[in-house]
Amino acid sequence: MTILNDAVSAAPLAQADRLDALRDELTRRGLTGFLIPRADEYLGEYVPPSAQRLAWLTGFTGSAGLAVVLRDRAALFSDGRYTLQMRAEIDTRQFEPLHQIETPPTRWLAAALSGEERIGFDPRFHTPEQIDPFRAVCDRAGSLLVPCLDNPLDAIWVAGRPPPPCAPVEIHPDSLAGASSAEKRAKVARTLRDDGCDALVLTAPDSIAWLLNIRGGDVDHTPLALSCAVVAADGTVEWLIEPAKRGTPGLVSHLGPDVHLRPPAELGAALDRLGSAGARVRIDATATSVAVIDRLTEAGARIERGTDPCLSLKACKNPVESAGARAAHHRDGVAMVRFLAWLAATAADGTIDEITAAERLDQFRRAGTLYRGPSFDTISAAGPNGAIVHYHSTPASNRRLSPGDLYLVDSGGQYRDGTTDVTRTVAIGTPDPEARTRFTLVLKGHIALARACFPVGTTGSQLDVLARQALWHEGLDYDHGTGHGVGSFLSVHEGPQRISKVGNNIALRPGMILSNEPGYYKAGAYGIRIESLLQVVESPAPPGAERPLLRFETLTLVPIDRTLIDPNRLDPAEQAWLNAYHARVWSDLAPALDPTTATWLKTATAPLF
Amino acid sequence: MTILNDAVSAAPLAQADRLDALRDELTRRGLTGFLIPRADEYLGEYVPPSAQRLAWLTGFTGSAGLAVVLRDRAALFSDGRYTLQMRAEIDTRQFEPLHQIETPPTRWLAAALSGEERIGFDPRFHTPEQIDPFRAVCDRAGSLLVPCLDNPLDAIWVAGRPPPPCAPVEIHPDSLAGASSAEKRAKVARTLRDDGCDALVLTAPDSIAWLLNIRGGDVDHTPLALSCAVVAADGTVEWLIEPAKRGTPGLVSHLGPDVHLRPPAELGAALDRLGSAGARVRIDATATSVAVIDRLTEAGARIERGTDPCLSLKACKNPVESAGARAAHHRDGVAMVRFLAWLAATAADGTIDEITAAERLDQFRRAGTLYRGPSFDTISAAGPNGAIVHYHSTPASNRRLSPGDLYLVDSGGQYRDGTTDVTRTVAIGTPDPEARTRFTLVLKGHIALARACFPVGTTGSQLDVLARQALWHEGLDYDHGTGHGVGSFLSVHEGPQRISKVGNNIALRPGMILSNEPGYYKAGAYGIRIESLLQVVESPAPPGAERPLLRFETLTLVPIDRTLIDPNRLDPAEQAWLNAYHARVWSDLAPALDPTTATWLKTATAPLF
Repeated sequence: MTILNDAVSAAPLAQADRLDALRDELTRRGLTGFLIPRADEYLGEYVPPSAQRLAWLTGFTGSAGLAVVLRDRAALFSDGRYTLQMRAEIDTRQFEPLHQIETPPTRWLAAALSGEERIGFDPRFHTPEQIDPFRAVCDRAGSLLVPCLDNPLDAIWVAGRPPPPCAPVEIHPDSLAGASSAEKRAKVARTLRDDGCDALVLTAPDSIAWLLNIRGGDVDHTPLALSCAVVAADGTVEWLIEPAKRGTPGLVSHLGPDVHLRPPAELGAALDRLGSAGARVRIDATATSVAVIDRLTEAGARIERGTDPCLSLKACKNPVESAGARAAHHRDGVAMVRFLAWLAATAADGTIDEITAAERLDQFRRAGTLYRGPSFDTISAAGPNGAIVHYHSTPASNRRLSPGDLYLVDSGGQYRDGTTDVTRTVAIGTPDPEARTRFTLVLKGHIALARACFPVGTTGSQLDVLARQALWHEGLDYDHGTGHGVGSFLSVHEGPQRISKVGNNIALRPGMILSNEPGYYKAGAYGIRIESLLQVVESPAPPGAERPLLRFETLTLVPIDRTLIDPNRLDPAEQAWLNAYHARVWSDLAPALDPTTATWLKTATAPLF
Repeated sequence: MTILNDAVSAAPLAQADRLDALRDELTRRGLTGFLIPRADEYLGEYVPPSAQRLAWLTGFTGSAGLAVVLRDRAALFSDGRYTLQMRAEIDTRQFEPLHQIETPPTRWLAAALSGEERIGFDPRFHTPEQIDPFRAVCDRAGSLLVPCLDNPLDAIWVAGRPPPPCAPVEIHPDSLAGASSAEKRAKVARTLRDDGCDALVLTAPDSIAWLLNIRGGDVDHTPLALSCAVVAADGTVEWLIEPAKRGTPGLVSHLGPDVHLRPPAELGAALDRLGSAGARVRIDATATSVAVIDRLTEAGARIERGTDPCLSLKACKNPVESAGARAAHHRDGVAMVRFLAWLAATAADGTIDEITAAERLDQFRRAGTLYRGPSFDTISAAGPNGAIVHYHSTPASNRRLSPGDLYLVDSGGQYRDGTTDVTRTVAIGTPDPEARTRFTLVLKGHIALARACFPVGTTGSQLDVLARQALWHEGLDYDHGTGHGVGSFLSVHEGPQRISKVGNNIALRPGMILSNEPGYYKAGAYGIRIESLLQVVESPAPPGAERPLLRFETLTLVPIDRTLIDPNRLDPAEQAWLNAYHARVWSDLAPALDPTTATWLKTATAPLF
């Protein structure tokens, strides 16, 4: 006779019942609270459905958030992008939606703690710098923060839970990577030796993908194989990855004899071995969990905090990756131009909506070779929806593109030779004069950054003001960064460089790819963003130059809507940049276009002056 | 019969013998090394002769430095400004001169330590963040870092040592300060209570000068009364200051009943009282010594690290201080214009040298009311001397101003109603075309910053690129910050705001005064710097503005040499700014000038176009 496992046999828990079920489970374990972050054990932006614990518990699907559950209260924290979405997605009687800057979770917890509480957290899902402030709050309140490797939420999320992803690993050939994994491993190993480290623990799947020249399919939009790795200072690697993912023909010989395949469950043992050898282990504390660090420390390893050496190597694209990026942007430009030409021909009659437009754009991209899929969920936003920075069309929100609207489309492709990310804002019919003025101010910022020239050592934070100054002079601004790093057939958001108001001490170096995306958003009316990808390149030295200079080369080849530009607001240098950019878009793309599209592009790229 | 004290009776130690004498003293105390910073117990930029231990020991008179003395080696560390000066001033057989960025002192010490050494330091002269890395180095090497409150250098520097300064305290009347000390103390006290602190320990004399509305004369150029203070959360103050400094008539009633005067020797007892009361004490760890923090901690106080609340209050000048700054800049402008007119009339014949020019400039300033003296040592630099950023003329370096030279003069005045700091670069005779081009690039940066318009919350670091971009486009740059804060009849360099490549998270706020001083330096040839002081003001909102805007108002009223400007390199907005600035200089100053000077100024401020 078989006794059925209650949990497995049960029907999936209804959304409304999950919080109570979690509280019951916490009580069973002697806990009075629990922290539920969005992150999983890879601590990245991309979380597979099987690990979306925060969304399962609260209903909130944003890309950043943390829930704090206590016996009689619970709150959900996210940032300003998600203020509206939190309220729309969660039951606010269960979770109080809060802005994490205005009400930091630690402050909320400090006020809520009654003393002698036991607050659990899963140490696999938090970095030390995330968890330390909670520990301080609990200490001060006489409460305890309790690590729970056996996650109580996992005990109640059983029925209806999606299985973990198990996509086969794909080989990223040296012909696209531009450097063999052995060369990359030698570089990383050398950095470790130079820093006096014996090993590096990697839990960031994009670092592993870059290092081993592999890709995967475990999460949407980004070709990651979720896995961990221990890199030794002799260049050998223990790669901890599900056996079911590694049946790919040729994978073992691609990896070579210095990469040892292990099942993920052996991570603990691998860390223990480092510890018992007294190894000095490089840890990037912004990307490594408390669980990994604690296990290493308890086993006797010496933690050497520093940055993941893969980050800066991965950020600087080599010549093969740079050529791939140009080829991918050429195909992406063709798709975008076909889309914009189609839009110009059809949108004015009011029959197109956001969702059909996005589908059509993906069709155009699929016609390009080496296309693997979108690099993120397309933002296809008409009129007031454009003012929602991270808008995602749903059947309920879906709008027709109507004459007089601005239409903002932010999209990108994963091509095997490069990742793209482009935003264009176009007028459907005749634009409103105010929108045209503000589009021109955004364009002035876009051009100022595209034209920037700067000495070696300059950071992205130093350049941010260039993209904002024209808006600032009119009392306008945008509440997001100006530029993020972009991977090579990898994450559409990658570090360490960025262009932002927030200070950042990473110097821009040749080969880095960044977005250039100033914007302007008028709530309830329209949104404007002009985004192209840039690559940092060495600049020719002007006569008399004393310092080596860098500049940007714009990779994106998509026209900027001339009907939205007020030419009187561009100075001669800006006019020259725009005309030269459009001339390049035309000459690069025209040979690949059908005659109808080419005719449209000819007009769309005609000189403004 | 009296036994003479050996040390007092001895002749002053010759420079060459000081290092050996220190080593003997260290040996007597069982130490194998000692750290000698430039700072004294006030940890500021301004050190009186009696506390210039580093200069006495090494001969080096720069404004930043640290010597590390070991038994068989010694090194002197400073920054790039002082590379040449270190070599010129010290005996390099005794001290190895090193660049503190290229060879950090901790790295040098780590390599030099042989293990089981005892390295002394005076905990009054270092902050925790300065000393912690040395402690880590000693720990790793099995050596010990030993605090020495009884400074061994003081034991050998007796004969010939100047007495500590003892200038009388001066009252800074409310009519110039714009707010009473009681009001200021109430604000600081409120901040302490809001932060849950019971007291604040101040060792920064400029904070004390601001808080108590007093000034002093203990160091050159900056009206400081060297002293310490303990501010309680009820607004009362214990002011620890030499009794001999406080005989000023009216001082006690100016301070009122809530300021309690104590001799400096009672600081330790005051800290102990805080400790035994279990007080939570606000400490600015960037401006407070290890000695103070250790004493508080040992006595039982709770250290609450944070910023000195006086800093941001002092930085934002109130309306009376702002009006004073304008009045002081008016008088300073008259002096500078009289000087430049005199220079224009006489320098071309080659009879003026750097030292006589600087003396003449001070004469013109002395003719202004409320003038108290220079706000720093005037930099009066002809030709190649201008390329030395912190140049100080000596009889040996003194140069004639000759036709074809650029002459750079960086000077300022302490007026009772405000502090000034201005740099102008002028051509003697006809300038070289390259110098004219580069002057124009520097001017473009100066204008871009002067014209900047930015939302509330913007930091100086975000704006720095505006001053550099024109130079960058030509492959040129300057290796110093773009702007520093300036006090109100107080330090010519004050924080917390600054405009710099280096990240800084202090938002610019209305009332702050900063310098705007881009430059360009061609070693062996010439130097260019154009410096005016700016004040942050609220900007009128343009139509449709959505964010509150700030901008700068230029306070300095001194023409910029038109013969050094290439008008073709200025765009229309830059031309308009320059003409409007010159028109304002003319209209504001002309009524105060003699006819000859007015005639010169009329031409010097004529529109360029």
